[in-house]
Amino acid sequence: MPLAIISIGDEITTGSVVDTNSAWISEFLLEHGMETRLHLSVPDDLRKVSRALRFAQTQARIVIVSGGLGPTVDDLTTEAACQFLGVRPVLNQHALDMIESRFRAIGREMTNNNRKQAMIPEGAELLENPFGTAPGYVFATKRACFFFVPGVPVECRRMIEHQVLSKILAREKGKKIFRPLILRTFGLTESRLDQSLAELELPRNVRMGFRAVFPEIQIKLIASGKTEASVVKALSRAQAAIKEKVGQYIFSENGRSLEQVVGDLLREKNRTLAIAESCTAGLIAKRLTDIPGSSDYFLAGFITYSNKAKTDMLEVPGRLIQEKGAVSSEVALAMAEGARSKAGSDMALAVTGIAGPTGGTAEKPVGTMHIAIADERGTWEKKLFLLRAERSQIRELAAQTALEVIRRRLLGQKNLEF
Amino acid sequence: MPLAIISIGDEITTGSVVDTNSAWISEFLLEHGMETRLHLSVPDDLRKVSRALRFAQTQARIVIVSGGLGPTVDDLTTEAACQFLGVRPVLNQHALDMIESRFRAIGREMTNNNRKQAMIPEGAELLENPFGTAPGYVFATKRACFFFVPGVPVECRRMIEHQVLSKILAREKGKKIFRPLILRTFGLTESRLDQSLAELELPRNVRMGFRAVFPEIQIKLIASGKTEASVVKALSRAQAAIKEKVGQYIFSENGRSLEQVVGDLLREKNRTLAIAESCTAGLIAKRLTDIPGSSDYFLAGFITYSNKAKTDMLEVPGRLIQEKGAVSSEVALAMAEGARSKAGSDMALAVTGIAGPTGGTAEKPVGTMHIAIADERGTWEKKLFLLRAERSQIRELAAQTALEVIRRRLLGQKNLEF
Repeated sequence: MPLAIISIGDEITTGSVVDTNSAWISEFLLEHGMETRLHLSVPDDLRKVSRALRFAQTQARIVIVSGGLGPTVDDLTTEAACQFLGVRPVLNQHALDMIESRFRAIGREMTNNNRKQAMIPEGAELLENPFGTAPGYVFATKRACFFFVPGVPVECRRMIEHQVLSKILAREKGKKIFRPLILRTFGLTESRLDQSLAELELPRNVRMGFRAVFPEIQIKLIASGKTEASVVKALSRAQAAIKEKVGQYIFSENGRSLEQVVGDLLREKNRTLAIAESCTAGLIAKRLTDIPGSSDYFLAGFITYSNKAKTDMLEVPGRLIQEKGAVSSEVALAMAEGARSKAGSDMALAVTGIAGPTGGTAEKPVGTMHIAIADERGTWEKKLFLLRAERSQIRELAAQTALEVIRRRLLGQKNLEF
Repeated sequence: MPLAIISIGDEITTGSVVDTNSAWISEFLLEHGMETRLHLSVPDDLRKVSRALRFAQTQARIVIVSGGLGPTVDDLTTEAACQFLGVRPVLNQHALDMIESRFRAIGREMTNNNRKQAMIPEGAELLENPFGTAPGYVFATKRACFFFVPGVPVECRRMIEHQVLSKILAREKGKKIFRPLILRTFGLTESRLDQSLAELELPRNVRMGFRAVFPEIQIKLIASGKTEASVVKALSRAQAAIKEKVGQYIFSENGRSLEQVVGDLLREKNRTLAIAESCTAGLIAKRLTDIPGSSDYFLAGFITYSNKAKTDMLEVPGRLIQEKGAVSSEVALAMAEGARSKAGSDMALAVTGIAGPTGGTAEKPVGTMHIAIADERGTWEKKLFLLRAERSQIRELAAQTALEVIRRRLLGQKNLEF
């Protein structure tokens, strides 16, 4: 059942508001088997709205239109709908009663322009709005069925959930079910992931795509089928096949963030953690403590930005820094060991590197990064080159890599390479 | 100069990503006098993309198309553009060189599908992408000029700012000039700001608006006129009038972030800083070190998440924590003094509080926050109630308040209230 969504409002086309309704409607209706072919946004302008309605019905059989049903002069969606249909706006007594009783309930006087909201195109069917004054309505042309809903996000969503969905489903027979699944990966580029999965055999009713959401790459699956059971089965077969190829790079299969996954692992294994950060300077600790309850496992962070701080706070020998440089394997290891011993934690992670834009040399260019771990199994260390243009990207990538190192270490994965 | 914007990608029409590019592009180009008539989003589908291109050129003279320029099989914007134009995709040698050198720089091998990104429609002009592998391009039909840019937000925005804008402006003659100016404030709510500026007299060609960009409130001015000089003059008159009323709350008039402003002040006054964080746990240090060159003034951060860490790392007496609680004026002051003495910095700031969602009590509800400063002038301390629903918002607000406290302290402002 192909779908088009139109959002109406100057606030959207001027960019002062981001249109979140369209994404919400698409995602919600996709779960019920409807596929969106088109999002369209136009300003509060009679000709542009009716042109959008005409275009939409050439693209989809269901069209959902949000916005422009308010009481003020710039709300002219109903006028445009009437023009498009070639009918008059008529007063809907039930709508007027609802608006009046709503105003009585909140003890306010109804203004004349609220009356305008009770006018709907002749022949349209009313959709009640229990959460606001603007009712919606539905009408069908030969080509498509149009649902008009308020633009206020909560009113829009409730009307779709409680009224529009059932009316759409009633029009369908033997409809298809769609279910999405997202596998979040880190450590492979999008094209290497694509290549690794190139020869994968997926159930025919599963579509796979990739999405780069810096710094991770997501594998997105959408399964479709006639029954819930067939869709779930296809998805889990696809999921298993993908995990067989690139499982070690998948850090989340259920929407949880990397810091949540790491936190859950620490709690599950009853381990505590301390962090020593130089170039990331708080970013890793900040992400770990974004999670409520992180005080169960996160004890302390040492932001040793200057060399002196590395020595004072973590007892990294001054001579070691002089000989090897603050950005070196030796200093990273000493930072991790220092953090573990100072905080008295089971595990400690240290990061030192050059985030740029200045400070790089031929031998240690901007993006050079050392990550070290100290725990009861001993120490581990890795040098990376995170070659990105932006300081912020280098720092985010370093933090993501560090969290992923902790995850793989906690899982006992031998391959800690990136 | 009417504008249409097309976003391409299954992730948008399935609703898994909210299209923020279109709003950003509209807002940015509106500031330069261009009005968006249409936003359009379609899936990665050849026919739907070319149909969208055809429709857009009937609605606008400038069309900006983002997304679908990546290396994988589902990226088919260029193929659709070729179909629409009736031309072949051709290899652009300069684009290929750029992609290759980008891969060389990061020491990775280029895969064959990255080569695909160097193919652009025959006759199109290349737009370089210094921030990613996907170049953009521009071509004109009889009806409209089309700009193709990457969908990754940072790459999309940079290409519009640095390349697309100048090309659009070059096509125009004798147009009105628009110039925006944003004054960034913190410490007053939007409605108090509105009230404070209610009786302000502004030049007639200056429009003023407010925008809440959590956690700050921005005062947005847009001046229009025929000449650069008239616009600049009107803007600076408006700016002066606003500063007279609410100047102390304005932390930035030139786009710089609060952490940049604080960093510049520290450098200018030749002062060094250390930070002790409990509930913000790295967030303040992270923001300060987002700024390149922050090692000039930022020495160290102590993330004393546990009580033991407060005592071990900052010598906050264990008895003080027991008697007054970790979230108290006394402990905040002891943390600031400890950080200053341990790091040997001129100034130290400490934050301790309850970010929630749990841990609050009747006396110290979630959102209770203590901020303390220690410097050569002595100490200063303030208790705040940051009443927000979300842990992340409480932490962000605490970090913003702390940075603003440093700013006002460095400026010698007596009023450190919020």
